[in-house]
Amino acid sequence: MEIGIIGLGKMGGNMAERLRKGGHKVVGFDFNKEATKKLTDAGSVGVDSLEALVKNLTPQRAIWIMVPAGDPVDETIAKLKPFMQKGDIFIDGGNSNYKDSQRRYKELKAEGFNFVDVGTSGGVWGLAEGYSMMVGGDEDVVEHLRPIFETLAPGKDKGWGRTGPAGAGHFVKMVHNGIEYGMMQAYAEGFSIMGHKTEMNLDLGQIAEIWRYGSVVRSWLLDLTADALQKNPNLEGLEAYVADSGEGRWTVFEAIDLNVSAPVITESLIRRIRSREDNNFTDRMLAIMRNQFGGHAVKKD
Amino acid sequence: MEIGIIGLGKMGGNMAERLRKGGHKVVGFDFNKEATKKLTDAGSVGVDSLEALVKNLTPQRAIWIMVPAGDPVDETIAKLKPFMQKGDIFIDGGNSNYKDSQRRYKELKAEGFNFVDVGTSGGVWGLAEGYSMMVGGDEDVVEHLRPIFETLAPGKDKGWGRTGPAGAGHFVKMVHNGIEYGMMQAYAEGFSIMGHKTEMNLDLGQIAEIWRYGSVVRSWLLDLTADALQKNPNLEGLEAYVADSGEGRWTVFEAIDLNVSAPVITESLIRRIRSREDNNFTDRMLAIMRNQFGGHAVKKD
Amino acid sequence: MEIGIIGLGKMGGNMAERLRKGGHKVVGFDFNKEATKKLTDAGSVGVDSLEALVKNLTPQRAIWIMVPAGDPVDETIAKLKPFMQKGDIFIDGGNSNYKDSQRRYKELKAEGFNFVDVGTSGGVWGLAEGYSMMVGGDEDVVEHLRPIFETLAPGKDKGWGRTGPAGAGHFVKMVHNGIEYGMMQAYAEGFSIMGHKTEMNLDLGQIAEIWRYGSVVRSWLLDLTADALQKNPNLEGLEAYVADSGEGRWTVFEAIDLNVSAPVITESLIRRIRSREDNNFTDRMLAIMRNQFGGHAVKKD
Amino acid sequence: MEIGIIGLGKMGGNMAERLRKGGHKVVGFDFNKEATKKLTDAGSVGVDSLEALVKNLTPQRAIWIMVPAGDPVDETIAKLKPFMQKGDIFIDGGNSNYKDSQRRYKELKAEGFNFVDVGTSGGVWGLAEGYSMMVGGDEDVVEHLRPIFETLAPGKDKGWGRTGPAGAGHFVKMVHNGIEYGMMQAYAEGFSIMGHKTEMNLDLGQIAEIWRYGSVVRSWLLDLTADALQKNPNLEGLEAYVADSGEGRWTVFEAIDLNVSAPVITESLIRRIRSREDNNFTDRMLAIMRNQFGGHAVKKD
Repeated sequence: MEIGIIGLGKMGGNMAERLRKGGHKVVGFDFNKEATKKLTDAGSVGVDSLEALVKNLTPQRAIWIMVPAGDPVDETIAKLKPFMQKGDIFIDGGNSNYKDSQRRYKELKAEGFNFVDVGTSGGVWGLAEGYSMMVGGDEDVVEHLRPIFETLAPGKDKGWGRTGPAGAGHFVKMVHNGIEYGMMQAYAEGFSIMGHKTEMNLDLGQIAEIWRYGSVVRSWLLDLTADALQKNPNLEGLEAYVADSGEGRWTVFEAIDLNVSAPVITESLIRRIRSREDNNFTDRMLAIMRNQFGGHAVKKD
Repeated sequence: MEIGIIGLGKMGGNMAERLRKGGHKVVGFDFNKEATKKLTDAGSVGVDSLEALVKNLTPQRAIWIMVPAGDPVDETIAKLKPFMQKGDIFIDGGNSNYKDSQRRYKELKAEGFNFVDVGTSGGVWGLAEGYSMMVGGDEDVVEHLRPIFETLAPGKDKGWGRTGPAGAGHFVKMVHNGIEYGMMQAYAEGFSIMGHKTEMNLDLGQIAEIWRYGSVVRSWLLDLTADALQKNPNLEGLEAYVADSGEGRWTVFEAIDLNVSAPVITESLIRRIRSREDNNFTDRMLAIMRNQFGGHAVKKD
Repeated sequence: MEIGIIGLGKMGGNMAERLRKGGHKVVGFDFNKEATKKLTDAGSVGVDSLEALVKNLTPQRAIWIMVPAGDPVDETIAKLKPFMQKGDIFIDGGNSNYKDSQRRYKELKAEGFNFVDVGTSGGVWGLAEGYSMMVGGDEDVVEHLRPIFETLAPGKDKGWGRTGPAGAGHFVKMVHNGIEYGMMQAYAEGFSIMGHKTEMNLDLGQIAEIWRYGSVVRSWLLDLTADALQKNPNLEGLEAYVADSGEGRWTVFEAIDLNVSAPVITESLIRRIRSREDNNFTDRMLAIMRNQFGGHAVKKD
Repeated sequence: MEIGIIGLGKMGGNMAERLRKGGHKVVGFDFNKEATKKLTDAGSVGVDSLEALVKNLTPQRAIWIMVPAGDPVDETIAKLKPFMQKGDIFIDGGNSNYKDSQRRYKELKAEGFNFVDVGTSGGVWGLAEGYSMMVGGDEDVVEHLRPIFETLAPGKDKGWGRTGPAGAGHFVKMVHNGIEYGMMQAYAEGFSIMGHKTEMNLDLGQIAEIWRYGSVVRSWLLDLTADALQKNPNLEGLEAYVADSGEGRWTVFEAIDLNVSAPVITESLIRRIRSREDNNFTDRMLAIMRNQFGGHAVKKD
């Protein structure tokens, strides 16, 4: 079928290509001319404006928005609307907060448009392996988009599904990322423990490789980790600095709002925050308190 | 090759069977006559004493001990020794503390015996899928046992390896279990958050199934979880009670001893402990303090 | 000076009494007739409507609102406004979110009113010992209210202060409560550890009493704890159920928003949430996973 | 009464002086001649050998050992024993592990000596304010030492007590320090949150001072903190590096061994460990994993 894609970066560009290969007509736009050219070169239709993008699609249009969460999504929708017509479908495939998706659905529905939110996982590997997609929205609209999902997913009926009404896609993706934080932290701690057992001189890459087969901790993340550790066993050239996107913190907020205790996901987020704290104030507070009551030194030897 | 196996329970029994199928001669012993009979019925040699087990093997003997960690391992070794001869190999495939393995190696080596520790992962699935094995011990002895490992492992060269000298097998397995605790807790929290988002009425089994393909959190544990949630979406009949074996707490102790901060693995252990605390004292302390300073109620409404 | 007080419960009623004793004219209102009568009996002016409250005060009026955080504060302000005149001062002495206080300040200022937010600590002990007060608002307005604060505080210049513009009072009080959660949890865990060292048969009340003098952990909370433990060493009749008010969770949200890692305050909140989870879903998830991969029992023995 | 003191550093030296002022005859030894001289100058008896120390005391001797935990305590006892006689009392006032104290009691008792363990809190303030002491040992021996404890304590019957048989003193002190870690971390986090609310420009020293009176979080630690923050509001010249002594980690190990969940004390320890991790391996692991699956940058911008 036909699909418009806005945002042809690492995620959107690969999705466009996977859809094209899957036999769909893709019309794409990006402020970055390079990205648009790459799309055209690959055999899809690159356009230079949102208006052109809409014009190149036949109603009932489906436009996949793959831009940063927050205002950019609202702005993109606002700019598209004047050219769209009733029944057309806005798809937010980015990392939006599910509450925004619920609001957008409501606002767009009131104007006669459709809205579907798609939590998308798979990263840079999605082009080759397919994307895991959690879809929220009206059943008939999701059904209408089935050919798109079947192509993007790892298998026709595998790795995607409608998890509920609008917002349910991004909600589930949000929790997915919370779990991801926890799993990553668990692996990282384990390898760190082993890396510090210096008298054993353990080969972390070898161990990760062993665990990939038959162990309880085998996973895709471990596959990637094994690869990374074999190439760079001492993690040279890496900074001990970990970003976090919105989903992790939203998961923590949501857990608290729902009165669900989620210490590991929460702690994983906190540790990412900690990784970005230089000259940690809390630690200096502890140091000065120890000095106050015990006369302990405030400097390392 | 020939191998003796002591302990024919869930793990040992399956390993014996996988070895037999792989063309090895297996001699097995268990205090449980049923288990021994099952071994014999399958075509291996079940014996009714440790002495008989040793007698049925040709030196340089290899005896795989698959009994509970701690004293049972020492007792088994002590009872076997009188029948064994120099060069014979004791293999501890259970969940021993790596420090015990280092000690046993040293003690046995001094008497002319060999000792190899094997951290074994795979659970009840190992029979069909193979076991992940982390092996510690002298290089030549591990090499001698290669045919055994190649058969037990998921693939000839996959899922097993010598991680270092004696103790290194159980050390790595210990950390493996620590990571396992963290991953399990991360998944459990995520599904708990989704399960409590009642207005979305999410289908947890469906979501787990979606994530199995293409998502960042896909893993073998998730495969099992998807299966469990599809069969029992509300976790009926399950008690909110989680045991922990030694490895999790040893990992926590080791991290502290090595001055490695491992909050997620630690918290995962703490939560298991918490699951077993009834009428939690800490919480009652909090309740009485709140009552003291704020006049807050000490009972639920 | 003159002051109106709305809300004569545990906190407001005691504050009214402390102010009366301090020589101030107190006009008080509560929906609960009993509370109003008690005020009148003590020698202050109890009134039966907000209008009457305002009418009984001379401009520039100061009205201390001591009602539950959230809508009740907005509603009280909205109902009072028609009777108030420019320059009158609304004081929110409750546990409002500081963002609401910033908003209310702005809205009221635009209409010519004044607004001051007072984070108040001290609980039921405030009547006798004085209240700790963190005050946010315009400098001149706070200065105008000085006689009130000097009376309510534990000492003329002790235990109160203007911490900044509107919102700064409730912000600091919010963090105060976050710290309070952490301290309480630390004590509770420590006493729990000692209580479980059954072979030592420790007397927790005696220990708390010892620590009250000269130890590093001496505090007012410990004074209360010692008293409680001496009266009820086994915490009988207490439910292991701990409520949390808004401030704890707001502190956690704020820490994350500010990118400050605050694991102990956060964990203290999480443990309160945990205390209210029956038949914990997360733990049942862990149990079913263990059963899936290891064939472990899903029930306690 | 008479008392010998071995170790005249920050703690032992001050205790000797407090005892001398209290009318006791103090005989002191330290490898550091300066410390011994200071003792003599103050009017006590400084000696230059353990033998001389013993000789200067009348049986039933009481010798207070104030040396670093671990081997130094055993070595000191071993060196003293040849000069001591049956019934003499060894007092370990340092930060020993309670299991060592239980062992030492048993060993010394078998040889006819007495042993008392004293967990001592109060730091550099003890000289002026008195020490909080938790005492383990035989009842009659502790009773015999009563004059010593009454002098060292903040009050005759305040701030000290026999908490149980040998080991119970150090056990309770161990938990005391665990609680101390948790309280310190709670304060430090709270002040850190406030320090990062830059738009409010909060005066942390003022806030600490306010809280000292009437607030729920008032404590001796807060008194010290207020003083420190008023002198050095931005914690300049302090390193974000926090040592931990044995007691914190022993408390964590003990909690786990007792199956008591103690997340806040544990996390406080973990954060101290974290403060000493440079170029954190765990964080670099997370960075490389993110790069692997998402193509995320591995360096700060």
